[in-house]
Amino acid sequence: MIIDIHGHYTTAPEPLGAWRQQQLAALDGGQAPAKDGPVITDDQICESLEPNQLRLMDERGVDVQIFSPRASFMAHHAGDFETSSAWSRHCNDLIGRVAELYPQRFAPSAMLPQSPGVETTSVIDELERCVAEHDIVAVNLNPDPSGGNWTSPPLTDQYWFPVYEKLIEYELPVMVHVSTSINPAFHTTGAHYLNADTTAVMQLLQGDLFATFPQLNMIIPHGGGAAPYHWGRFRGLAMMLDKPELEDHLLNNIYFDTCVYHQPGIDTLLEVVPHRNIMFASEMIGAVRTQDPNTGHYFDDTVRYIQAAELSQASRQAIFEDTARAVHPRLDRRLKAQGR
Amino acid sequence: MIIDIHGHYTTAPEPLGAWRQQQLAALDGGQAPAKDGPVITDDQICESLEPNQLRLMDERGVDVQIFSPRASFMAHHAGDFETSSAWSRHCNDLIGRVAELYPQRFAPSAMLPQSPGVETTSVIDELERCVAEHDIVAVNLNPDPSGGNWTSPPLTDQYWFPVYEKLIEYELPVMVHVSTSINPAFHTTGAHYLNADTTAVMQLLQGDLFATFPQLNMIIPHGGGAAPYHWGRFRGLAMMLDKPELEDHLLNNIYFDTCVYHQPGIDTLLEVVPHRNIMFASEMIGAVRTQDPNTGHYFDDTVRYIQAAELSQASRQAIFEDTARAVHPRLDRRLKAQGR
Repeated sequence: MIIDIHGHYTTAPEPLGAWRQQQLAALDGGQAPAKDGPVITDDQICESLEPNQLRLMDERGVDVQIFSPRASFMAHHAGDFETSSAWSRHCNDLIGRVAELYPQRFAPSAMLPQSPGVETTSVIDELERCVAEHDIVAVNLNPDPSGGNWTSPPLTDQYWFPVYEKLIEYELPVMVHVSTSINPAFHTTGAHYLNADTTAVMQLLQGDLFATFPQLNMIIPHGGGAAPYHWGRFRGLAMMLDKPELEDHLLNNIYFDTCVYHQPGIDTLLEVVPHRNIMFASEMIGAVRTQDPNTGHYFDDTVRYIQAAELSQASRQAIFEDTARAVHPRLDRRLKAQGR
Repeated sequence: MIIDIHGHYTTAPEPLGAWRQQQLAALDGGQAPAKDGPVITDDQICESLEPNQLRLMDERGVDVQIFSPRASFMAHHAGDFETSSAWSRHCNDLIGRVAELYPQRFAPSAMLPQSPGVETTSVIDELERCVAEHDIVAVNLNPDPSGGNWTSPPLTDQYWFPVYEKLIEYELPVMVHVSTSINPAFHTTGAHYLNADTTAVMQLLQGDLFATFPQLNMIIPHGGGAAPYHWGRFRGLAMMLDKPELEDHLLNNIYFDTCVYHQPGIDTLLEVVPHRNIMFASEMIGAVRTQDPNTGHYFDDTVRYIQAAELSQASRQAIFEDTARAVHPRLDRRLKAQGR
C-alpha cells in the first residue's frame, strides 16, 4: 500500500473560496457570510476530486492520502481568532465530508484556528471537535500564524505546550506547516514553506522539546526544508550547542516527508536521513503542478523517485506505508477497520 | 591554486569587539567610543590569524581567502545609519590591514553600512571608499538589515538598484549574506543564514533582475540554502511563473559557494548545479568549528569534499580557482600582479 501523508484540498469547490472572500470582506465592513458556512453539494466535492487528486492517485498507484485544508488558504494572519475559528470549522468539515465520501482514499487531517498572539489553548476546542466529529488522523500546526512576520515563540516554547498535550492525548502526529506569506520578501511556496521547515528543525535542535514530550511526533514537510542538504551543518551545530547526536536528539520524534521534486534531492534525503524517519508524500495537487520537460513526468510525482531510488524492499515498504501507520495510529486503526 | 571565496574575520582582536560594545552602549546613553576606531596593533592581527585561519588554510591547501568582516557582527539592525557607518568603516579598515599584512593570502571584501529603511544610496560612499583605499574584490549585501524581521523589499526591487549600479561600475560581485538574527524564531547560522539564501534565490526567480542588470554577479552562500536540494521545485515554480529555465533565467548571473558541510550535500550541489556556477568556499572559521566524529575531519574542511567528489579535472579547477577569478575580476588582477 502507498500512503501519501501530505495532501491539501487545493481544488475545493468554488463556494468555499467565495465564502472566505465574503468573510474577509466582512472584516472591512461587508456583509457577513452565512454562519453555517458555504453550501457545497456532494456532487461538487466529487467533481473537484475525481478528475484531479483521485485521477492522479490512480495513475501513480497511491492508495490513500492524508488530506487537510489548503495550507496557503489557512491564512491565520487574517482577522482575529473568531475569523480563524469559523474558517477552520468550515474547512475541516469539508475535509470530513471528503473522507466520508471516499473512506478508502482520503483520511482527514485538520487545520487549527490559530491567530497571531492568541493563546494556543484557544485551538483545543476545534481540535477536539475534529477528533470527535471527523476522527482526524493528524493535525497541521502553523509555526508562524502571522504569515511571514514570525512573531510567535519557537516551537520549543511553553506557548505551544497545550497543543502538544492534546496531540499526545489523542495520538495525533503534527505536521509543522505554514500558510501564505504576506511578507513580500517571501514567496509562499518557494521560500516561506521551505524556510519554515528549516526553521522548525533548528528550533527543535536548539531546544529539548522531546525530553518534555517524548510521545510527540512531528512531521517536517517538504523533505525537511534545507535540513538534509545541510545535515553536516546541523550535526556540527548540535555539537556546538552541546546537544546529543541528531539521531538521539531529534530522530525519535521528527519525520521528514518526500515532497522533494527531483531525483537528486530525494536521493540526498534517502542517503542522509535514516529511512525510518521518512514518510512518502507528494503534496499533490500543490505548489508545483507542471511536468518536468526533462523527464516528461510531473515534478510532484514523487512515487517515481522513490521507486527509482536504490532502496531495500524493507525501506521502501517503510517509507510507503509502515512508518505512516506507526506515526499515525488513528490512520492505522482506520485502515485496519477496513480490513487493510 | 585554491581560492576560498567566503571567509569572515571571526577571530578579530578583542579591541574591535570592545569598541563595538561601547558604541552600542552609547546608543543607550553611555560614553561614545573613540571616533578613530579601536586601537589594534599589527601583532594583534597576526596573532589572531596565524594560529587560526592561516594555520587551517595551510593544513587544507587553501592559497587565498576572500576575507570580509564577521557576518553575524554586521548587525545592521543596531542603531541607525551613523551607527552602521562608523562600524562598517572600522571593520572594513581592519580587513584592509589584513590584506596588506598578508597580500598573498587574503583579498578584502567589504560590508556595507546598511540600516533598515534607509535608502541604499547611503552605502555608496563607503563602498567607493573601500574600492579606493582597500581595493576590495567583493562586497557583502544584507537582504534583511532588520535582523530577521525581513522589512526590506525583495532584491529585485528598485530600492537596491543604486548598489547594483556601483557594483557593476567597479566590477564587484556581491555576496548576499544576512547578519545576526534578533528574531527568536531564527537561529542565526542554523536557520536565518540558510533561509536568506533560499529567499534570495526565490526572489531572483520571481523577478527579472538580470534583464535589467546583465553584468551583475551575485553569490548565494551556504550552497544556495535549500535551492539545490529543491531544484525540481524551483524549476517547476519557474515554469508556473512563466520564467525561462533556471539556466537561462538565473545561472548567467548567480553562483553558489560550497559551504555545505558533508559529502552528500556537496554531491547534491555538484549533481544539480552546473559546475561553472559553483565556487569553492568554506566560511572557515565560521558557524561550525567542530570535527565530525564520523570522519575525524572538520565539518567545514570543504576541500576534502570537493577532492572526494566525482569531478572532472576541468570542473575541479573551475570550482577551486577559475570561476572565482572570472567572477572577481579585481581579485584576478590582484593575483596577476603577484605573478599568480
